[in-house]
Amino acid sequence: MEDWLRFSVCYWHSFCGTAITETWLDNNIESSVVEPSGFSAFRPDRDPTITEMGRIPLGPRPSTGPGMKELRWSQPRSDSELLLSFSPSLVDMAPEGSTLEESNRNLDEMTDLALQLQSQTGVRVLWVTCNLFAHPRYMNGAATNPDCHVLAYAGAQLKKGLDTAQKLGAQNFVFWGGREGFLTIHNTDVAAELKHMANFFKMAVKYREKIGLKCQFLIEPKPKEPCKHQYDYDAVSVIGFLKHYGLENDFKLNIEPNHTTLAGHSYEHDVVMASAFGMLGSVDSNTGSPDLGWDTDQFPMDIRNATLLMKTIIEQGGLQPGGLNFDAKVRRESTDLEDLFIAHIGAMDTFARGLRNAVRIIEDGIIPGMVKDRYSSFSHGIGQKVEEGSASLEEMESFSVTSSSRNGEPKVTSGKQEKYESIFNHYI
Amino acid sequence: MEDWLRFSVCYWHSFCGTAITETWLDNNIESSVVEPSGFSAFRPDRDPTITEMGRIPLGPRPSTGPGMKELRWSQPRSDSELLLSFSPSLVDMAPEGSTLEESNRNLDEMTDLALQLQSQTGVRVLWVTCNLFAHPRYMNGAATNPDCHVLAYAGAQLKKGLDTAQKLGAQNFVFWGGREGFLTIHNTDVAAELKHMANFFKMAVKYREKIGLKCQFLIEPKPKEPCKHQYDYDAVSVIGFLKHYGLENDFKLNIEPNHTTLAGHSYEHDVVMASAFGMLGSVDSNTGSPDLGWDTDQFPMDIRNATLLMKTIIEQGGLQPGGLNFDAKVRRESTDLEDLFIAHIGAMDTFARGLRNAVRIIEDGIIPGMVKDRYSSFSHGIGQKVEEGSASLEEMESFSVTSSSRNGEPKVTSGKQEKYESIFNHYI
Amino acid sequence: MEDWLRFSVCYWHSFCGTAITETWLDNNIESSVVEPSGFSAFRPDRDPTITEMGRIPLGPRPSTGPGMKELRWSQPRSDSELLLSFSPSLVDMAPEGSTLEESNRNLDEMTDLALQLQSQTGVRVLWVTCNLFAHPRYMNGAATNPDCHVLAYAGAQLKKGLDTAQKLGAQNFVFWGGREGFLTIHNTDVAAELKHMANFFKMAVKYREKIGLKCQFLIEPKPKEPCKHQYDYDAVSVIGFLKHYGLENDFKLNIEPNHTTLAGHSYEHDVVMASAFGMLGSVDSNTGSPDLGWDTDQFPMDIRNATLLMKTIIEQGGLQPGGLNFDAKVRRESTDLEDLFIAHIGAMDTFARGLRNAVRIIEDGIIPGMVKDRYSSFSHGIGQKVEEGSASLEEMESFSVTSSSRNGEPKVTSGKQEKYESIFNHYI
Amino acid sequence: MEDWLRFSVCYWHSFCGTAITETWLDNNIESSVVEPSGFSAFRPDRDPTITEMGRIPLGPRPSTGPGMKELRWSQPRSDSELLLSFSPSLVDMAPEGSTLEESNRNLDEMTDLALQLQSQTGVRVLWVTCNLFAHPRYMNGAATNPDCHVLAYAGAQLKKGLDTAQKLGAQNFVFWGGREGFLTIHNTDVAAELKHMANFFKMAVKYREKIGLKCQFLIEPKPKEPCKHQYDYDAVSVIGFLKHYGLENDFKLNIEPNHTTLAGHSYEHDVVMASAFGMLGSVDSNTGSPDLGWDTDQFPMDIRNATLLMKTIIEQGGLQPGGLNFDAKVRRESTDLEDLFIAHIGAMDTFARGLRNAVRIIEDGIIPGMVKDRYSSFSHGIGQKVEEGSASLEEMESFSVTSSSRNGEPKVTSGKQEKYESIFNHYI
Repeated sequence: MEDWLRFSVCYWHSFCGTAITETWLDNNIESSVVEPSGFSAFRPDRDPTITEMGRIPLGPRPSTGPGMKELRWSQPRSDSELLLSFSPSLVDMAPEGSTLEESNRNLDEMTDLALQLQSQTGVRVLWVTCNLFAHPRYMNGAATNPDCHVLAYAGAQLKKGLDTAQKLGAQNFVFWGGREGFLTIHNTDVAAELKHMANFFKMAVKYREKIGLKCQFLIEPKPKEPCKHQYDYDAVSVIGFLKHYGLENDFKLNIEPNHTTLAGHSYEHDVVMASAFGMLGSVDSNTGSPDLGWDTDQFPMDIRNATLLMKTIIEQGGLQPGGLNFDAKVRRESTDLEDLFIAHIGAMDTFARGLRNAVRIIEDGIIPGMVKDRYSSFSHGIGQKVEEGSASLEEMESFSVTSSSRNGEPKVTSGKQEKYESIFNHYI
Repeated sequence: MEDWLRFSVCYWHSFCGTAITETWLDNNIESSVVEPSGFSAFRPDRDPTITEMGRIPLGPRPSTGPGMKELRWSQPRSDSELLLSFSPSLVDMAPEGSTLEESNRNLDEMTDLALQLQSQTGVRVLWVTCNLFAHPRYMNGAATNPDCHVLAYAGAQLKKGLDTAQKLGAQNFVFWGGREGFLTIHNTDVAAELKHMANFFKMAVKYREKIGLKCQFLIEPKPKEPCKHQYDYDAVSVIGFLKHYGLENDFKLNIEPNHTTLAGHSYEHDVVMASAFGMLGSVDSNTGSPDLGWDTDQFPMDIRNATLLMKTIIEQGGLQPGGLNFDAKVRRESTDLEDLFIAHIGAMDTFARGLRNAVRIIEDGIIPGMVKDRYSSFSHGIGQKVEEGSASLEEMESFSVTSSSRNGEPKVTSGKQEKYESIFNHYI
Repeated sequence: MEDWLRFSVCYWHSFCGTAITETWLDNNIESSVVEPSGFSAFRPDRDPTITEMGRIPLGPRPSTGPGMKELRWSQPRSDSELLLSFSPSLVDMAPEGSTLEESNRNLDEMTDLALQLQSQTGVRVLWVTCNLFAHPRYMNGAATNPDCHVLAYAGAQLKKGLDTAQKLGAQNFVFWGGREGFLTIHNTDVAAELKHMANFFKMAVKYREKIGLKCQFLIEPKPKEPCKHQYDYDAVSVIGFLKHYGLENDFKLNIEPNHTTLAGHSYEHDVVMASAFGMLGSVDSNTGSPDLGWDTDQFPMDIRNATLLMKTIIEQGGLQPGGLNFDAKVRRESTDLEDLFIAHIGAMDTFARGLRNAVRIIEDGIIPGMVKDRYSSFSHGIGQKVEEGSASLEEMESFSVTSSSRNGEPKVTSGKQEKYESIFNHYI
Repeated sequence: MEDWLRFSVCYWHSFCGTAITETWLDNNIESSVVEPSGFSAFRPDRDPTITEMGRIPLGPRPSTGPGMKELRWSQPRSDSELLLSFSPSLVDMAPEGSTLEESNRNLDEMTDLALQLQSQTGVRVLWVTCNLFAHPRYMNGAATNPDCHVLAYAGAQLKKGLDTAQKLGAQNFVFWGGREGFLTIHNTDVAAELKHMANFFKMAVKYREKIGLKCQFLIEPKPKEPCKHQYDYDAVSVIGFLKHYGLENDFKLNIEPNHTTLAGHSYEHDVVMASAFGMLGSVDSNTGSPDLGWDTDQFPMDIRNATLLMKTIIEQGGLQPGGLNFDAKVRRESTDLEDLFIAHIGAMDTFARGLRNAVRIIEDGIIPGMVKDRYSSFSHGIGQKVEEGSASLEEMESFSVTSSSRNGEPKVTSGKQEKYESIFNHYI
């Protein structure tokens, strides 16, 4: 089971007790949880059993990481020792200094400690990202900023990020372009910005090569928020961008379902589409509420959705080196320390049930068999020629005319959606 | 003015007085306007002054097209003789026969007449499309149907469609994949369907070449409706698809703003994005209501939106051979014959005002100048290297560190959205 | 189980094989299923085993109703003989004549037959409605039409509808105001229209009294579609309207979850709100897709949603004389006759599982107990005074100030959303 | 012009330079602008020319308010000396103390200064509100909190708020129930919460009476955010609530169009509906982006929307004692001090153009005349009886039957939406 459910806990949400937020402005407010509407909330996360790493710049450093241990202990009903990893978002790990050099030194100090804690706990790093969106300098974009100075600064931070990923043994490196888009089309040169973003990615690819970094690069689509419109709108948008600029072999996608639903798709859509294009690299397993138009980053608790996700993941042979990262916040109102554990356990159970359901669906073979039959006409005759790309419109016409030896009007075939749904319900 | 405002009237909406609908089932109901919710409505369009071509299978055929003449006369306030064209949707032009052969004969008879009317009126054909979505045989897809027989039938109809485009001298040929998507992911093999669709398009490209057809091929994105999800979700999705299958040199996009807003974008978004990728071919100039989640196909009456569209079109040097097709229906409740004329006139006036506003914005140069200044750092030094793709992360770092000769933290630059909006308001 | 699951099959969707549509225009197209986008589809429902009543005006009338019998037989896994009823929408039952008088005679003939079939099969009528929205005469409203002549015609049809409800022994009478709203605010006098609608309802109340009709009156909210905006937007809107015009004792609500989600609410929202106001009368148990912005009327297959609905229904002591009406269409692509049965069975199973889940939640008492504890401060002391409405702001201040004997700052209490969700998941 | 355009500047947005946010946690971050996604931004608003009042607890207090003077000077193009007022949100005015008593003392000190500044500048207070949503104690509701202790604390703060409104001569008092709703239905007793909220409002009404406060009470609807669902969903929801609890004579509505669009309505909808029910008290004139699902609080720049709003306001005879409050934030990226002025000027100009357009529409009488004609059938005969509520269904039937002296089928009348839109466009 741990091969399929490579769970990861978010350092910034669950250990810092904060949204990706003002920590660079004021270390004293690391305990706030900021909501969509900009309100903060009380979080009792100053307790060293949970925030120990986050508090390091501010106080004593215990030699072990009990918060991580606790999380490891928190999975009794998931049947096996699950892999546990964490995903530090750079910058959030260490306070930003007054210069780039000082920021880098802060980060070095923190990652030294992280390495030590990783070795003590056996926790490994699923992915590292570089926060090129929260600092005010990035408000008009990082790679797409109209001021090249900002792009340069982002490049400098990215370089440090890639070095850090190598140091921590991160299995993936995620790019989320929260500021790569626009607030108003009036002031924006879209063509220029897209080109700059592509060139920025190319620098990252070259540098990865240069330092021999083994990380898989991942782009995380999101349609909007914080920008009005972001270029990495959804899975297919990103694939189109990568293809256009010849970057498709250097990146895969990290899909977050809450972003998918914000893009107007169903929950599972971008996981399915990315997988169909061979581009699914990892999943930020969270959820939103379908009736809300912003990124709520809730813990995923819907068994149907988890089943569909796990089915797609199994069908493509797993997510390695990617995983299931709980990029999720307990609700602002969930103020007990135990809520953090309950939330992770509840979400893990949901995905464990999803995995089992998906395995049964696949092993029973009923639904997969129905789908296979549905497309069987493409395995022979004219269907095979279409499949292979060797057919022509003239052949299509010749096949379709109505004569003694020809086919005429196709027969009606039911799509049987309700039957699929009813059978699917038997598994959940 | 007529070079920029290449208006086109929709044959199926405005001459047939019907949504793309049951005409293949029952020629007697050609006068109904079907709404999103499936309700029909009374339309007094049996009047031969307007529906003459639509009524051809049912009655006498007058030798002239007064409906078209009327529309030509309907533009007094737009300052000049505007180009007028029409866009017959195949199948809607002629009743479907009981076999493909009979359908084709019906179409031939109709297009003979259309040619004759074109010559009498001077009306030219902006584009032709092939209706591969309305007939029940296409309910599970045309090019993406799980049954290859249906794909073949679609191919046969497409072949006739391309022949017809050539016969009528159509300047463009539009593919709208209303059924190319899925109703439920449970029964769908996305990867297989995408490949079949690509191969279907390749057959079209080959046949276009073979017959020497001069039409520009256009794909029209739409995210959903009638399907739950359609593969041609939005401009960038389609561009990604075309790139993935090596079809990007054979197609451009026909953008319909109502489809754009259904995909979660702002009104002008897909026009801007398609243009930024060099892929904007034509525009179906209509509108929806931002508070409604379906395709209402209303006549465009918003001057701000028309200004933004025309500005993008001017900046790319026009739409030729594309145009501004009024793929719009008068409301079901707009039952007077004059409403059809008022709607076209009101929309033409809106775009004429949009054109003038856009010209003034561009000629004044205030907003374009502000945008140019905003990106000026990319014209020299490190910015130029980024622009050219020759920069590296190491250079970014070196540029960004803080030392006597270096740059350190970038300065804050306001995005000035409200200033852009206020200045823009002066032009409309 | 049959006391809680008072299922009802929709005559118009399932027996006519059509959306509420052109039947008044052309009896020959009773087999089409019209989709949101206005496309029709082939439905093989001419088979007399299923459409026998719908075909009555067109052919021979068998003396029994095997379609209904079949449906009764279709519920093997739901543990008990379930109540079955049907909900004819007037007008759809019989073809509209060329005059009101002729339409009424057609209806009389049909209802005579319906009565006979009801007696043969034991099928009873959950509710009757009067279709005051599909005919073109109602395109600008029935009770809210700007032309009083149309309002009068609607009143005449409503009178016949109430007489018919009495004749058929209908337990409820539903008002759905599909045209009671506006397409554009430019041409609309909202205040006048609301008053006319209220007066129209008052006439209905008076006539119900006069003829001694026992039906519960129900209003079905829907926010939009076919109108751009409808006055009966959602449950609370309708309650506000009823209160404003003093009609709250004469009506309850018929909630359709697909309408609820179109109004921007979560699936269960309007059922919960209507029940909280003591106004929940019946449920049109269907579903939409959260990523689609129109009324898809799918069969409800989500067990979580069904559980929440049944929990609310149990908590208010049931729905009688209301029920669970499957106002749902099989998908256009579900063209096999069996699909209609599978869809009903799948949906019934979903609600049966929902009922059992809800019963276990309530009998276990864990979640209800947590909720009760959460509000326990209102059962004594100052809480009780607030509850009873006898407290004042001065007392609130006095309670809240910080002194030796006072309370000061309230303690933080976790909302524990993730715990509730995790426990809830154990039941489904 | 100043009688119709009673503009008000938001103290919290424009003088504090912050969203309603962490000021109670840390006075040092008053300069941050928090976005929907929780990110902060640099704002140079520490400049005393603009934030002088906000900085009072932190430094020297100049004896005049140049920020306010500047805003007064900022309206050169709006043709006349416009009324200017401001709307302090309590709590944001003064730092929260460690006890209620200390908080109240802080507020007293600030309001003494505010009174002095008001007298020096002539600025008057449009409305005051009481922030019962941002402090963590209100995370589960204020009036609807499951813990009566929190409700009591809210009551104590409200009492102080009403005293303060009286002290400052506020013309209105606004209730915005940002936390009056739920995050998850699982843990919520809706019926109990609604009753508590009603009783809370009743305490406010009693206290207003007791102290002889002249303020108009206003409720501001918002459907969601920060809660998943808020009880004050939209205008008609609030009216329904008020009617249900007998509070309709004590409150009017403060409509914010960005909230209206979040509730799924068109921009002008809630202003029109509130006015139709005689309940429109004031307007928070801002805007969102139709493609974004959260409350962006942008400055209103759309002339069409402003025209529709002003038309409704003129038709009801003005907003007094309400006004047009710019509850709007400059974008996070608009970091120049001048942006704040440009934004206010641009929005004022927009409403000034809207006012002039609306006056011309009304004085020309073309559109109003078309609407009046449309409803003319209700001024005599059977229409008048419907209008007066004295008609019956029997009369409707008798009117509608077809006989020599009767009326039969109504004639078809076009709704003419496109004509209305085209004429409307002539005025903007």
